[in-house]
Amino acid sequence: MTDDERAIRELIATWMRASMAGDTDTVLSLMADDAVFMVAGQEAFGKTAFAAAADRMRGMRLEGTAEVRELQVQSSLAFSRTYLQVTLTPPSGRCVRRHGYAMTIFRKGPDGLWRLARDANLMATVG
Amino acid sequence: MTDDERAIRELIATWMRASMAGDTDTVLSLMADDAVFMVAGQEAFGKTAFAAAADRMRGMRLEGTAEVRELQVQSSLAFSRTYLQVTLTPPSGRCVRRHGYAMTIFRKGPDGLWRLARDANLMATVG
Repeated sequence: MTDDERAIRELIATWMRASMAGDTDTVLSLMADDAVFMVAGQEAFGKTAFAAAADRMRGMRLEGTAEVRELQVQSSLAFSRTYLQVTLTPPSGRCVRRHGYAMTIFRKGPDGLWRLARDANLMATVG
Repeated sequence: MTDDERAIRELIATWMRASMAGDTDTVLSLMADDAVFMVAGQEAFGKTAFAAAADRMRGMRLEGTAEVRELQVQSSLAFSRTYLQVTLTPPSGRCVRRHGYAMTIFRKGPDGLWRLARDANLMATVG
């Protein structure tokens, strides 16, 4: 495994850990300022809208795993296919389970750090 | 626009035209042999399963547009974000409209030709 691959796998693991801990600042630090997120049934959105959505999710418990099924790096551009399994539990109410792939683009900045640049999230509610 | 960008935009346009014409052979020629397709709610699938699905759709009329919202090329790797609007009409029955983003990875082969390598399709049924 190259240093770049290792760095991106670490980014994905840190992202999941920080998401589960509700540590939005860390998650935001792992994405480019021009990051774009895509999910089914709504318009693409950026970093500010991501932060606002994370804010609205405060109080929910998030648990899950991100299994890297593929990772390819070409100089300062990379993409991954990750299989996500997530359970969201609101303070009161039933939990929601969502599974599915995400395809993600990463870019290496002039500072040598990899950041998430684009993300297409195909998770669907199960069970 | 670079030659690579032009070639990829042409690939996307040819893909749409061939899909609408039911010309599966042309569509298959535009993808890598190890192409992987991802949609919500099912396992990722490859070229053989894509061909089988196209076969099952014979007789359906497909009309639509693919608007390239973003395209970035880095040497022999590229990605696009495309907004798709598609109407599927079965021989008898009501048409289904589906809209949404696709994020796609393209690779340039040793023959100098770009081919679709990975595709995450977020289209959802509307109306």
